[in-house]
Amino acid sequence: MVNETQHTCSASSSSRSDGSSSGSESSKDNSHCSTPVLDADRHERLREKMRRRQDAGDKWFSLEFFPPRTANAAVNLISRFDRMGAGGPLFIDVTWHPAGDPGSDKETSSMIIANTAVNYCGLETILHMTCCNQTKDDITGHLQKAKRLGLKNIMALRGDPAGEEWEEEVDGFNYAVDLVKHIRNEFDDYFDVCVAGYPKGHPEAESYEADLRHLKEKVFAGADFIITQLFFRPETFLKFMKDCQAIGITCPIIPGIFPIQGYHSLRQLVKLSKLEVPQEIKDVIEPIKDNDAAIRNYGVELAVSMCRELLDSGMVHGLHFYTLNREVATTEVLKRLGIWKEDPRRPLPWAVSAHPKRRVEDVRPIFWASRPKSYIYRTQEWDDFPNGRWGNSSSPAFGELKDYYLFYLKSKSPREELLKMWGEELTGEESVFEVFTCYITGEPNRNGYKVTCMPWNDDPLATETNLLKDQLEKVNRRGILTINSQPNINGKPSTDPIVGWGPSGGYVFQKAYLEFFTSSEIVTALLKVLKKYELRVNYHIVNVKGQNITNAPDLQPNAVTWGIFPGREIIQPTVVDPVSFLSWKDEAFALWIEQWAKLYEEESPSRMIIQYIHDNYYLVNLVDNDFPLENCLWQVVEDTFELLN
Amino acid sequence: MVNETQHTCSASSSSRSDGSSSGSESSKDNSHCSTPVLDADRHERLREKMRRRQDAGDKWFSLEFFPPRTANAAVNLISRFDRMGAGGPLFIDVTWHPAGDPGSDKETSSMIIANTAVNYCGLETILHMTCCNQTKDDITGHLQKAKRLGLKNIMALRGDPAGEEWEEEVDGFNYAVDLVKHIRNEFDDYFDVCVAGYPKGHPEAESYEADLRHLKEKVFAGADFIITQLFFRPETFLKFMKDCQAIGITCPIIPGIFPIQGYHSLRQLVKLSKLEVPQEIKDVIEPIKDNDAAIRNYGVELAVSMCRELLDSGMVHGLHFYTLNREVATTEVLKRLGIWKEDPRRPLPWAVSAHPKRRVEDVRPIFWASRPKSYIYRTQEWDDFPNGRWGNSSSPAFGELKDYYLFYLKSKSPREELLKMWGEELTGEESVFEVFTCYITGEPNRNGYKVTCMPWNDDPLATETNLLKDQLEKVNRRGILTINSQPNINGKPSTDPIVGWGPSGGYVFQKAYLEFFTSSEIVTALLKVLKKYELRVNYHIVNVKGQNITNAPDLQPNAVTWGIFPGREIIQPTVVDPVSFLSWKDEAFALWIEQWAKLYEEESPSRMIIQYIHDNYYLVNLVDNDFPLENCLWQVVEDTFELLN
Repeated sequence: MVNETQHTCSASSSSRSDGSSSGSESSKDNSHCSTPVLDADRHERLREKMRRRQDAGDKWFSLEFFPPRTANAAVNLISRFDRMGAGGPLFIDVTWHPAGDPGSDKETSSMIIANTAVNYCGLETILHMTCCNQTKDDITGHLQKAKRLGLKNIMALRGDPAGEEWEEEVDGFNYAVDLVKHIRNEFDDYFDVCVAGYPKGHPEAESYEADLRHLKEKVFAGADFIITQLFFRPETFLKFMKDCQAIGITCPIIPGIFPIQGYHSLRQLVKLSKLEVPQEIKDVIEPIKDNDAAIRNYGVELAVSMCRELLDSGMVHGLHFYTLNREVATTEVLKRLGIWKEDPRRPLPWAVSAHPKRRVEDVRPIFWASRPKSYIYRTQEWDDFPNGRWGNSSSPAFGELKDYYLFYLKSKSPREELLKMWGEELTGEESVFEVFTCYITGEPNRNGYKVTCMPWNDDPLATETNLLKDQLEKVNRRGILTINSQPNINGKPSTDPIVGWGPSGGYVFQKAYLEFFTSSEIVTALLKVLKKYELRVNYHIVNVKGQNITNAPDLQPNAVTWGIFPGREIIQPTVVDPVSFLSWKDEAFALWIEQWAKLYEEESPSRMIIQYIHDNYYLVNLVDNDFPLENCLWQVVEDTFELLN
Repeated sequence: MVNETQHTCSASSSSRSDGSSSGSESSKDNSHCSTPVLDADRHERLREKMRRRQDAGDKWFSLEFFPPRTANAAVNLISRFDRMGAGGPLFIDVTWHPAGDPGSDKETSSMIIANTAVNYCGLETILHMTCCNQTKDDITGHLQKAKRLGLKNIMALRGDPAGEEWEEEVDGFNYAVDLVKHIRNEFDDYFDVCVAGYPKGHPEAESYEADLRHLKEKVFAGADFIITQLFFRPETFLKFMKDCQAIGITCPIIPGIFPIQGYHSLRQLVKLSKLEVPQEIKDVIEPIKDNDAAIRNYGVELAVSMCRELLDSGMVHGLHFYTLNREVATTEVLKRLGIWKEDPRRPLPWAVSAHPKRRVEDVRPIFWASRPKSYIYRTQEWDDFPNGRWGNSSSPAFGELKDYYLFYLKSKSPREELLKMWGEELTGEESVFEVFTCYITGEPNRNGYKVTCMPWNDDPLATETNLLKDQLEKVNRRGILTINSQPNINGKPSTDPIVGWGPSGGYVFQKAYLEFFTSSEIVTALLKVLKKYELRVNYHIVNVKGQNITNAPDLQPNAVTWGIFPGREIIQPTVVDPVSFLSWKDEAFALWIEQWAKLYEEESPSRMIIQYIHDNYYLVNLVDNDFPLENCLWQVVEDTFELLN
């Protein structure tokens, strides 16, 4: 803003001088290395974000999901979080299923799904919680656990009573308002609290007016905003909103949008919610009830037109979507409304976790670039996160890769698919080279299958890596098995669609990076070649036993991605850290065995080939420090092959 | 003076090299923000530096000074430290004058001069200390104070006995070895300890051999190295060194070199040291004893030839010079020997303090670029120093500018000279513009005097600022009174002679910066112009009352100088910090009055002109964030003038 923020500051800066540090650990937060606040979002709580968007006139959306039934469904839901997260929801919410052990550590529980969304997918998340038929201790336990996991928002609900005929419990949780009060009593202002509103009145309420009064009680007990039950006509919501305002409810009220996606899901929902479907909708749907596509198209149309009316009213700033864990209809509605972010600006080159403890984090080692969830998992016990500098030999140990959380590190693809991609039967190291090459080129393998993932990369090649495709193909064919790379960038605008990140008006830079597995013969030649390049190329070479060759000065980290922005300190989000490389090495080598070798029978030739590579190959990383010049790493590899011939 | 205090000898040791520190101070080293160790020198103790130089076959030199008698002489000596420090001495040492209250807080005391050399000039420094006629408590007090001030090295000497006839005190400090033992007992390995050696034997020793035994005692008691008394023939030293080795003294022995600079100083020295001048030297000197230049030339010749012989022997790695606080002869000898660093590589763009507490410091606000000593003074109470990031709202307050230390901030030039440069009589604001313009151009002012310093710049224009000379001249003529600026740099090699810094193989960058005083009329126009530039230009405008206009996002600091190096994290040594700017503002405005207005009589028109500027002008800083493009700040100023016309 070029506007004059006129403030008269007292002459000396003594006002901010209390930040003296005493204890060794906590002093971190008060150190000089405070975050540059690359994006305000990371530092605001949900209600602040909502207010800021509203003040700025930005329209937004949010997405509701329910917890999956099986572990495989959970893996798929997490991928969906990533894909739908890319569209830029203000938040997502995860419903609470009392019957499904919702507060447990099971990978399908509401608690753990919400945890994953926040910590691993970086999504602002609301966890639903119901209170009826539960003790205060149970509820407090759930809330404490949510807090511990980094969840900051709760949707406080009553939930369904156990029996048909429901009776109030004395001193128990009888209504959502009891839960709201409990949260505020026990956790003060820690959580943002959301409550449900019923545009037609709650089906069990004495009257519409009585229900409005209940809603007001919930808000006055400390709720920050309201999400409504679904409705079928925009005027239903707009009337409800005016009625709320008329009785003094001033907090944000977010309409719940339900794009009709199928005949059966609609019927089921109507039954559960005791809502009535308007005749005009029934008239359209009944004749096409067996045509799923037609119903979905109609649902999308209907939702788009209703959302437009709501937004045009000027009273609605955000829309909440009941996704039913499906992607297509909601995404379509959002795209048609123009509020799906087609090109979300990345605040940093990697996916930022939304855990409050990690809000200052702005440096990571490059090694986990394709496995950000594994990185977050392995650093979850850290008390503080690198900010500004990575530092040397200073980071706490990385977590082991041994417990049930490995779930997050599993491939999305089933064994049969992996075998088709990576080979039902391997005939030698060369057939492994071929798999790597097919992954790079996108061409089908000898059996006609495309290789769309690798043990080290669960997704197809990144757009940025595509810049290096030809070179990568060449070297993989010859046994330089690349798993991570980036081109050098000498000052591209931060808005560049491929390599840009951070706020606009800045410039981003990279040093060329190449990481690969290769045989000891190639390593021997490579080391001779590297001598010629001296300090221009930093290298680190290690085998599974930890034999370790590097020219990193004093094992210091090397910044390989950085950005310069208006009015800010320099951000260097990615480093090649020789110390962390040894933790990554364990993971990178383990993936050969855990993900690839174990596809085959024990003692089978295929398995032994992978085992041989695991036991004998080296993991190599190379950095070209001369980022303004042409990337010399391809020449290094070329020279190496020449020396071998 | 040249060991004008005689020492009894004794002593001992071999060297230690564990140098680990514990306690709260060192915990910083384990944080994520550890320093990138841009130059190892900052982290080594003196004996380690000595050993590393010797192992690398690098020849080095050191310089001895005595404390000045007057405050003005102290100001001059400090300038000499800066100039001679630029030649790259491994260390300097400051002698101890028992008669001059050497441990006091007087600006001329040995303690405070050594403190200045370490903290403000960034020189590795040895403080001499004598022990005879002093109590253990006195000595311990001195050593504690030295430690508190950041001094790490002590030259342990006996000193002159009080009376003519000297008697041993029981349990007192009788010999230098007692002081060495005391230091090791009370301070363990904190200090590096140096002792004196006498190539011809100490004049009071029973014999040359007995004196050698005393030296061995001192070394074995814990001394780390030996500096010798002066001598006139290289063979004297080489024999002495062999004799030392023969009795098991293995620590470094550094020859003390005394370039003869004049007839009288030589005679006085000989008298004090009880040395005999060889006949061949007397033969040359006596005939030219009234020709100072001739004697100095001869002295330089003699010293060069002796030093060459010593270095050629292969036994000598460093040379210690008795400078007598003079510059010319010693500098000449060092240049002829080729060990004076003509182009010292700057580890950072600003002068680094040698205080151990500041060893991680690698970020400073740009405002004090021309007043680094003031910056060090005003931050001396900080418990830790910015490293990697400046951060926002995190640094402790800046010290006030009120006590006797303002001494360091005084101009080197006397009042009469300043009046000649800045005008005996000012006739209006325009005559002030003229002074600024003459300073920039280097042209004489209307009275024929060159303006070689300004209240904000004690030295002539920096080479780098010269790049902007034409533009600066133009704007100063019109009342944009510049006091600090830097051009934009888009990736020059770190070895660039003008803008380079840090290790070789890197690239340095800068955003263009301009800081000036100007009238409120110009500020009003400037603000209109700046609107057009939006986020491209960050500005901060403040007057003496603290009225404050800025577009710095969240008062965050803006990195304006940074460097990218092989195998290292990014270094950003200079920031424009909107919060510190308010502390700098006080100093910058005060300099108008303290250094300029007060040259004139109270109520005089000249004084009132400066007072008017002080009261009514604004201090402005501008940063052009688009460092890869042509610097737009001149266009901003141009547009401003156009708007005014």
